[in-house]
Amino acid sequence: CPQCFLRSARARRLLFEDLDVNIVVKDIALADGKKISVTWPDGHASEYEVEWLKKRCFSEEARAEMRGDLFLPERQYWGSDLQLPKIPFEEIMYNDESAYKWLCTLKKVGIVLLTGAATRQGELVKLGHRIGFLRLTFYGPTWQVQDKADANNVAYTTGKLCFHTDYPVLQHPPGVQFLHCIKQTDAGGESEVVDGFHVCNRLKEQSPQAYQILSSTAVDYTDVGVDYCDFAVQCKQRIIDVDSRGQAVRINYNNATRDTIFDIPAEKVRPFYGALKEFVDLLNSAEHKFTYKLKPGDIVTFDNWRVLHGRQSYQSGSEVTRHLEGAYADWDVVMSRLRLLRKRVLNRD
Amino acid sequence: CPQCFLRSARARRLLFEDLDVNIVVKDIALADGKKISVTWPDGHASEYEVEWLKKRCFSEEARAEMRGDLFLPERQYWGSDLQLPKIPFEEIMYNDESAYKWLCTLKKVGIVLLTGAATRQGELVKLGHRIGFLRLTFYGPTWQVQDKADANNVAYTTGKLCFHTDYPVLQHPPGVQFLHCIKQTDAGGESEVVDGFHVCNRLKEQSPQAYQILSSTAVDYTDVGVDYCDFAVQCKQRIIDVDSRGQAVRINYNNATRDTIFDIPAEKVRPFYGALKEFVDLLNSAEHKFTYKLKPGDIVTFDNWRVLHGRQSYQSGSEVTRHLEGAYADWDVVMSRLRLLRKRVLNRD
Repeated sequence: CPQCFLRSARARRLLFEDLDVNIVVKDIALADGKKISVTWPDGHASEYEVEWLKKRCFSEEARAEMRGDLFLPERQYWGSDLQLPKIPFEEIMYNDESAYKWLCTLKKVGIVLLTGAATRQGELVKLGHRIGFLRLTFYGPTWQVQDKADANNVAYTTGKLCFHTDYPVLQHPPGVQFLHCIKQTDAGGESEVVDGFHVCNRLKEQSPQAYQILSSTAVDYTDVGVDYCDFAVQCKQRIIDVDSRGQAVRINYNNATRDTIFDIPAEKVRPFYGALKEFVDLLNSAEHKFTYKLKPGDIVTFDNWRVLHGRQSYQSGSEVTRHLEGAYADWDVVMSRLRLLRKRVLNRD
Repeated sequence: CPQCFLRSARARRLLFEDLDVNIVVKDIALADGKKISVTWPDGHASEYEVEWLKKRCFSEEARAEMRGDLFLPERQYWGSDLQLPKIPFEEIMYNDESAYKWLCTLKKVGIVLLTGAATRQGELVKLGHRIGFLRLTFYGPTWQVQDKADANNVAYTTGKLCFHTDYPVLQHPPGVQFLHCIKQTDAGGESEVVDGFHVCNRLKEQSPQAYQILSSTAVDYTDVGVDYCDFAVQCKQRIIDVDSRGQAVRINYNNATRDTIFDIPAEKVRPFYGALKEFVDLLNSAEHKFTYKLKPGDIVTFDNWRVLHGRQSYQSGSEVTRHLEGAYADWDVVMSRLRLLRKRVLNRD
C-alpha cells in the first residue's frame, strides 16, 4: 500500500501504533493472473505480485529456501587436505563474476588466496573499495605485520603465533581478515590455518562436556596500548559462540590477549583449562591444520569468525625480512557486496 | 614470568600448548611484604604484586568489584520525569573531568545533551576525534538528517518517526548515536526518547509471555539502496537481546526496516504481533516517554542499544527548515575512552 510504504527507501512508513494487529482481509481478488489485490477493512488497498507473495509463504520449505538465498549458510569443512582456493587479484578487481566467485567461496570454505597483487602497501585499500569499505580498529585502517621494537602486539615480533582469531577483545570481532604479503623471509614464517567450525564439530563428538564449557564460559579479554589512538579495551566472550541450535557460529580465541582477570568461580577454573586444552590439541592435530607459505603478492582472505590462523617463528635481524599488510572487513559489508554482485552476474533479484 | 609475557604489548606470549594445565606451585615466598614469588616445577618464576593478585581473587565479591570497575554496569532508569543531563560541548572537548563525567552519565543514564556547539557540519567529526574514532556505515562517516527528494531512508523525510533504534539490520548495531542540531524548524520536529531497558523491565512484569516472545523471536531486517556506496544488507535480530540472566542488554527495533520476509512458523505470527503491540504501547505511554526539542548547537548523545528515539512530523517546504548531522560510535571505543579518562582524572589504574 503506497500510503504505508516509502518506495524510494524500500521501507515501511506505516506507524506500528496505527496497525490493528488483529486485522483481517476484507476482500481479495486476482488481477490479470499475476497480481493479488487485497482490500483492508480500513480502506487501504495492497497489491502483491503472486511470485513475491509465494516466496514469503510461512511453510518450512519456503522459509528455508529464502534463508539459504539471503545468508548462504552452506559450509564446506576441511582439514589438512584443504585445496586452497586461488584466484588472481586482478580478476576479482575487474571481473564481477570472479569477484562473486571469490566471495561465495570465502563464505562457504572460509579461505581464498588472491594471487599476483603488487608488492607494495595499498592493495588492501583497493580491495576495501572493491567490496565497500574496510573496518577501522585501534590498529588503524590497515596495519603492518613485521618485527617492531617495543611491539604493542605479539604479532609484531618474529615469534611463533599459535592458532588464534583476531581481536576477540572487540564485542563484534572483525568477520573477515585480509593479509597481504609484501615481503617474505627465506626460512620460517610459514602460515598455518585450521577450520574452527570443523574442529568444533569434532570436539562436540569427542567431548561434549568440553564443548559445553567453551560455549558457555565467558572469558575476559584485554588490550591496552597506543596505535591509531590510545586504547584500553575489555570484553567478555565465549570461546565458542553458538546459535540457538548449539552450532558454532563464531570462534573468539586469542590466548595472547586473554586477560589475567578471569571472572569465573574458582572450582570452574581447572575444568575450563582442561576443556581449552582439548580444543587446542584438536586445532593443532596434523589431521586438521593446513600449512602454507605466503609469497610476495599473495593476499590471503579468510573468515576470522571460523578460521584460526597462526605463524611459525623466523629469524629476527637488523632488517625487516618479512612484511604483511593486514586489514579487516565486516561480514555485513562482504555479504552485501556478494548479494549485489549476484544480482548483477545472474541478472536477477 | 618475563619468558611468558611480552611487556611492551602487555600480552601473554606463552603458547597454550606449552602450558601444563595441571601444574601446581613448587615453591612460594613473600618478598619484601608486597610481592609474592612463585617458583614453578618447570623452572619458570613469577612475581606478583600482592594487591594485583588480590584483585584477581576468585571470590564472588572480588569478581563483582572487578566487573563493576571494568564495565560500569550500573543503570539509572527513567521515564517522562527524566532530568535531561546537559554539559557544554566546549567543556567535554577541552576538560578531561567533564569528558569523563559525560561518558559516565552516558553509560549510566543512556542520554546526555551537549550544548553550545557551532551550528555547522563538522562538530561530530571533532567529537569522534575526542573519543577515538566514529563508526563508518553505509550511510557514510556522518550523515545529514533532512527532507530529501527520493529519500533512501524514512528519516530523510518530514514524516513522524515512531520509536526505534538505529540500524538493527547490522549484526552489531551502533552502540552510541550522536545527533547534532544545525537548523531547527519552528513548528513540529520535536524529539522523543524512551528508556528501552526500563520499559523492558515493565513488560517483563506486566506480560512475561510477550517479553519471552520478543526476546526469543528472530526478526528479519533489510536495507537496500545507495549512499556511501551501494548496499543490500539483511540480518536477523531479536527485538530484545538478553544476557544469560534474561536481562535486556540491547533493543533492536526499527519497524521501517523490518523485512516483508518473516522467517517464523505461521502460528507464531499473530502472537508475535500481539507481543510487539504490548511493547510499543508501553514505549508510547505518557509515563515512559520524554519529549524535548533540539536547539541549533545542541548535540544529543545517547545509547542506541537502550534508548529508542522518535521525531514528530513537521511541515515540508521548498527549503530545508530542519537539519541534523548524525554519527555513530561503538561502545568499545566509548568505554575505552572512558577508562583512559578515568585513569588520568583519578590518577589511578
